[in-house]
Amino acid sequence: MRVIVCGGDGFCGWPTALHLSARGHDVSIVDSLIRRQWDVELGAQSLLPIHPLADRLEKWRELTGRVVRSYVGDLTDASFLLDVLRRERPDGIVHFAEQRSAPYSMIDREHAVFTQVNNVVGTLNLLYGIKEIVPGCHLVKLGTMGEYGTPNIDIEEGYIEIHHKGRSDVLPFPKQPGSMYHLSKVHDSHNIHFCCRSWGLAATDLNQGVVYGVQTRETSMDPILYNRLDTDEVFGTALNRFIAEAAIGHDLTVYGGGGQTRGFIQIVDTVRCIELALEHPAQPGEFRVFNQFTEQFSIGQLAARVAAVAPRLGLKAGVVHLPNPRVEREEHYYNAAHTALIDLGLEPHLLDDALLEEMLKLAVRFAERILPGKLMPTVRWR
Amino acid sequence: MRVIVCGGDGFCGWPTALHLSARGHDVSIVDSLIRRQWDVELGAQSLLPIHPLADRLEKWRELTGRVVRSYVGDLTDASFLLDVLRRERPDGIVHFAEQRSAPYSMIDREHAVFTQVNNVVGTLNLLYGIKEIVPGCHLVKLGTMGEYGTPNIDIEEGYIEIHHKGRSDVLPFPKQPGSMYHLSKVHDSHNIHFCCRSWGLAATDLNQGVVYGVQTRETSMDPILYNRLDTDEVFGTALNRFIAEAAIGHDLTVYGGGGQTRGFIQIVDTVRCIELALEHPAQPGEFRVFNQFTEQFSIGQLAARVAAVAPRLGLKAGVVHLPNPRVEREEHYYNAAHTALIDLGLEPHLLDDALLEEMLKLAVRFAERILPGKLMPTVRWR
Repeated sequence: MRVIVCGGDGFCGWPTALHLSARGHDVSIVDSLIRRQWDVELGAQSLLPIHPLADRLEKWRELTGRVVRSYVGDLTDASFLLDVLRRERPDGIVHFAEQRSAPYSMIDREHAVFTQVNNVVGTLNLLYGIKEIVPGCHLVKLGTMGEYGTPNIDIEEGYIEIHHKGRSDVLPFPKQPGSMYHLSKVHDSHNIHFCCRSWGLAATDLNQGVVYGVQTRETSMDPILYNRLDTDEVFGTALNRFIAEAAIGHDLTVYGGGGQTRGFIQIVDTVRCIELALEHPAQPGEFRVFNQFTEQFSIGQLAARVAAVAPRLGLKAGVVHLPNPRVEREEHYYNAAHTALIDLGLEPHLLDDALLEEMLKLAVRFAERILPGKLMPTVRWR
Repeated sequence: MRVIVCGGDGFCGWPTALHLSARGHDVSIVDSLIRRQWDVELGAQSLLPIHPLADRLEKWRELTGRVVRSYVGDLTDASFLLDVLRRERPDGIVHFAEQRSAPYSMIDREHAVFTQVNNVVGTLNLLYGIKEIVPGCHLVKLGTMGEYGTPNIDIEEGYIEIHHKGRSDVLPFPKQPGSMYHLSKVHDSHNIHFCCRSWGLAATDLNQGVVYGVQTRETSMDPILYNRLDTDEVFGTALNRFIAEAAIGHDLTVYGGGGQTRGFIQIVDTVRCIELALEHPAQPGEFRVFNQFTEQFSIGQLAARVAAVAPRLGLKAGVVHLPNPRVEREEHYYNAAHTALIDLGLEPHLLDDALLEEMLKLAVRFAERILPGKLMPTVRWR
């Protein structure tokens, strides 16, 4: 299958591109490399050193004989994008190419506007490009579980059957996103759904949970293929922060009460989910939504897990609670469906102590790359 | 009350600004005047000749002694907008300043992207401006009934209580908008809701039906105050098209089967609804949604009404059906709640033959301004 991975230089996109290439797909990457620029802007850096995209691809070719083509440009540049689609004529497009940090989107007005325009316009250009050039192409779009917020009912996969005043309909699940970034994903979902209804496009929206872990089989083959891992307050997730804090002898910092519960997925399952979605495409006109996560944890539970494993590496890790910089419910009901990908064949890798140990070891190994001044929250929601 | 009317030079905004001024509010208008430019772009024109904004305001001052200030600039220009907010320090902001034509948004990719960026960024700038400069200001935002689409259950006002698997919650009503324009309004609604939840802003989202009629008490005081009326395929509504067609001896052109049912409201009720929303503001943190329409009609019913009244003016009007240029259900359930504004005091003006006769007379009077080449649909959804 000819597949384009948009955002193929990033934390999820890079291992996905390699995984699909390893499985025999004909892969090309489209990426503006702006994620690397955001590190420069924020004065942050990946825990693992990452190599230039061209070097990564050359190493991959050298080790496996497989060629992954790359196009450096931005999805918001329609003429660039249309040109790539004309050249590649993909069967499937995996779309990771968005600004994906909630705190980044909440820095100020400019970052909020940038995030929404970047994500919405990039996706609109992709939709129009597919319609115009490759109408049969299957779009696999990364959404987020954060689109749903924390409703007091079970979260279903994209749609819900509502019974109301003696009638019923299956309607899009109501969304209550919690940041300007999460809002941009909700906007995308509505836009894509419309294009499937109106133009007959085929799309799968993968509402992904928080991704943890670092390496996949492919990225661990050589240091030049290593995946990025973010520990800073803006792009790092809570688990990554806990790992980094433990490695440098800092207490683990939980935002607020710690009862905030979310869906989580390991990076090795992310790449497999993308593969499954591509190999079992949506039908023309279908806007299919899968919840892409394997387990639910509260932030407090994650901190406790890290604190329990850290001593095995001789690390001491207390847990402290910080005033929550975000506006979110800290105690809430949370139960989200996630069976569709398992039905397609996903065999989940659950969070175990071995994985936490592996992450802690990486953090210790690269501890000099952890910037303590970048761990504490400065971006506030209010 | 100090009120800014954004989009105060447009079809709804202009009569609203005058109405609020007449009722004793201290009104200023913010408008980029781009709506006039779209007429130039499309080669279309208002049925009634409209005068420059400065002339309109000068005439209003001359006739009533009331001053309405104006600021010509774009909401997507944040520094302009923030400066206006600092000068005006409004108690309320009425936000009509969006690209509001579904066909315009569906012309091509560029118009879709323009519509979404223009509407979403303008509203985001307004939200950040309110947060920064006038956090107690009440935002009255114009949404559209088209955000809901045509679900097979009753449409409620913004929220719906959902019972699901033994639990329940009151959640945002699911949205199925039918064009790139309608999508932009859904994006706005989610963005505003988030800012109310996170920052404690007070907002009212008025999901307005299709507006008909032309003049209000104030706009009819002098030809220089006349309101615009659009009959072209891009900015004209179905009823306006039927009126224009009848005036020039053209059959009334119904898109598709004509069973498409929508909510409608007269312009004299629009201005009253805005007044009611301003005078009964939302609470801090509240995102209040009202469905702003007074009656439901199918497109076929409207055509039949116009065809029945036209002969009284000596006009012949047959009804023909065109292949539907839009993607929409032509037979569907439709029953939408609209009691909140009536509870606040709205006394609806329903569609009667006298109003249709008045519109037909205007169309006959200005018949030479109707451009027959601009009536038939050229913008297609697919």
